[in-house]
Amino acid sequence: MRLLDEQAIEHIALGASLLGTGGGGDPHIGRLMALNAIKKHGPVKLLSPDELPDDALVVPSAMMGAPIVIIEKIPNGEEFITAFKGLEEVLGKKVYATIPIEAGGVNSMIPIAVAAQLGIPLVDADGMGRAFPELQMVTYHLDGIPASPMVIVDEKGNSVILQTITNNWAEEIARVCTVTMGASVMISIYSMLGSQVKESGIKGIMTFSEQIGKIILDARTENSNPIAQLLELTHGYELFKGKITDVSRDIQGGFNRGLCALSGIDDYTGESMDVSFQNENLIATKDGTVVATVPDLICILDADTSIPVTTETLKFGRRVVVIGIPCDHKWRTAKGIETVGPRYFGYDLDYTPIERLAAPQEAE
Amino acid sequence: MRLLDEQAIEHIALGASLLGTGGGGDPHIGRLMALNAIKKHGPVKLLSPDELPDDALVVPSAMMGAPIVIIEKIPNGEEFITAFKGLEEVLGKKVYATIPIEAGGVNSMIPIAVAAQLGIPLVDADGMGRAFPELQMVTYHLDGIPASPMVIVDEKGNSVILQTITNNWAEEIARVCTVTMGASVMISIYSMLGSQVKESGIKGIMTFSEQIGKIILDARTENSNPIAQLLELTHGYELFKGKITDVSRDIQGGFNRGLCALSGIDDYTGESMDVSFQNENLIATKDGTVVATVPDLICILDADTSIPVTTETLKFGRRVVVIGIPCDHKWRTAKGIETVGPRYFGYDLDYTPIERLAAPQEAE
Repeated sequence: MRLLDEQAIEHIALGASLLGTGGGGDPHIGRLMALNAIKKHGPVKLLSPDELPDDALVVPSAMMGAPIVIIEKIPNGEEFITAFKGLEEVLGKKVYATIPIEAGGVNSMIPIAVAAQLGIPLVDADGMGRAFPELQMVTYHLDGIPASPMVIVDEKGNSVILQTITNNWAEEIARVCTVTMGASVMISIYSMLGSQVKESGIKGIMTFSEQIGKIILDARTENSNPIAQLLELTHGYELFKGKITDVSRDIQGGFNRGLCALSGIDDYTGESMDVSFQNENLIATKDGTVVATVPDLICILDADTSIPVTTETLKFGRRVVVIGIPCDHKWRTAKGIETVGPRYFGYDLDYTPIERLAAPQEAE
Repeated sequence: MRLLDEQAIEHIALGASLLGTGGGGDPHIGRLMALNAIKKHGPVKLLSPDELPDDALVVPSAMMGAPIVIIEKIPNGEEFITAFKGLEEVLGKKVYATIPIEAGGVNSMIPIAVAAQLGIPLVDADGMGRAFPELQMVTYHLDGIPASPMVIVDEKGNSVILQTITNNWAEEIARVCTVTMGASVMISIYSMLGSQVKESGIKGIMTFSEQIGKIILDARTENSNPIAQLLELTHGYELFKGKITDVSRDIQGGFNRGLCALSGIDDYTGESMDVSFQNENLIATKDGTVVATVPDLICILDADTSIPVTTETLKFGRRVVVIGIPCDHKWRTAKGIETVGPRYFGYDLDYTPIERLAAPQEAE
């Protein structure tokens, strides 16, 4: 157990935003929510999953919807009091701790704010090790943990409790509720026991985010090369450096979809890259050849500051570095690839681990 | 209190279908559901609202969605066990009786089936005195009774509980859930106390439906004129007799919308009528002049059998009689007209009671 202070939150927000691979929300908004909450309620206890009692009720807290919307619609913090009360009634058990469902600028921060506000600990694990756009895209789903009972709460005071026969039904019904309730809502889903978190969670994600964020922030003062350090920490690959020449996007069915086109600079002059996204970056192609695909992480960072760039802040002319990071091994199983591989997102493309895609390039 | 037997159910199904004004579902399907349920579980007790204890929990049961879909998707009867259990948990009280939310071929029958299956009484009242397409279109809403907690259950086993800040939010969220869950679902909504049913319900609707159905069915053997008897019982007006020359319709957002064009026969030869509907018949115009508008009832009957014709069975060449019936006085208040008047449905038209619209015609 350790306490998360302001400095830790600054680092986690930034690092989680990188792991958010373009999605997971604006880290600045997330940061403010978490910082305000600990200012008001005191620092948050971060528990290692191994510190959880096996029978403890652990309830994830997150935002659902198009992340572009949350910029205009900051949660008021009351939503989770309603959501957790609803779940405690349905489950007949007190909530022991909260946990992030994914890594991202907002969705790593909301659980910190919730933990502070409700005076409960936060667990250092998540269900993705990155961000993904749909609710069944969690390691919990791979292990057969049900998404429901699921609670959806909007900032107006409407709430919905779902009990679904499959996790994909939870996604489908929750998605239309989200769009109707204002395109961005607070959710609790995949309530679990401590024993299930230990088995199915991706452990240490908050600490990992913190390490990433620290590298990026420290580089500002130390004038070091954060990209090299980040690649070393994450076992990642530099995929491209370029200027954004075009971004097309629209909000469809509660998702923020689009394509970002890049023209190479420095070592990549004369080359081009396309990155497709649906909330998160999904596929990167260099000069028409696929160099990284979901579920591996495709992260875009500002070329000058190394600050992660979310899909909603991609804009013409911005100079960026694209890096690829191997995903957690849980995603590389048959069920993992079926759940979050390129074919699920509509690409006629088999998944090839980034280590193999990157290998010939390294050999040049 | 009296028992509803097979004969009563046949009459109610038919009469409620007339009051359904084109909506409320196929009376044949509704009939079968109710008849099967009483065959299996025995006859159902029909209580007058005045027989209800003031603190009794009364829970409406209904189908929601495009009625055309239910023809392919007969509820399995298990849905309400789930729905009522969900509500009992939320409300912390046992359900005393069920009640229809509207009059219609299916939605008057479902509460009979539910009452039989759960062994609880049925209350002789509803919230519309006819059928309407949206959830806030009930007299309970006019009196400030909340729609939520609302339960939605599909035949697959998915369920949703809504807690909304307004009844219009219940309609909006439930509508998208309905479409996603398969375009036709079972719902429980506007849970009430006995005292509220007494004050806000439209009393005697099942008995009224039964009287209507009896007139129509008896006419088959007695060779009498059921239209005249129906007009006398309902204080209604004959608006038109004609052949259907065109029906345009589509299912949009869970509603069955359209327009039915008629060409006059017999006394109406040379005249034309248009009837617009959204699940239910909303506006009737004769030779371009409005002769009846929602919330008054516009009912289409088969010219030969006097069987009510639902909007989904309108078809080219069918000979029909159109009658208009004054709505319950609760709908003629300012809030009533705001909730279900022509302007709510998008018509640039003030509501004029059918008695006034029909008066000049009578004077001719």
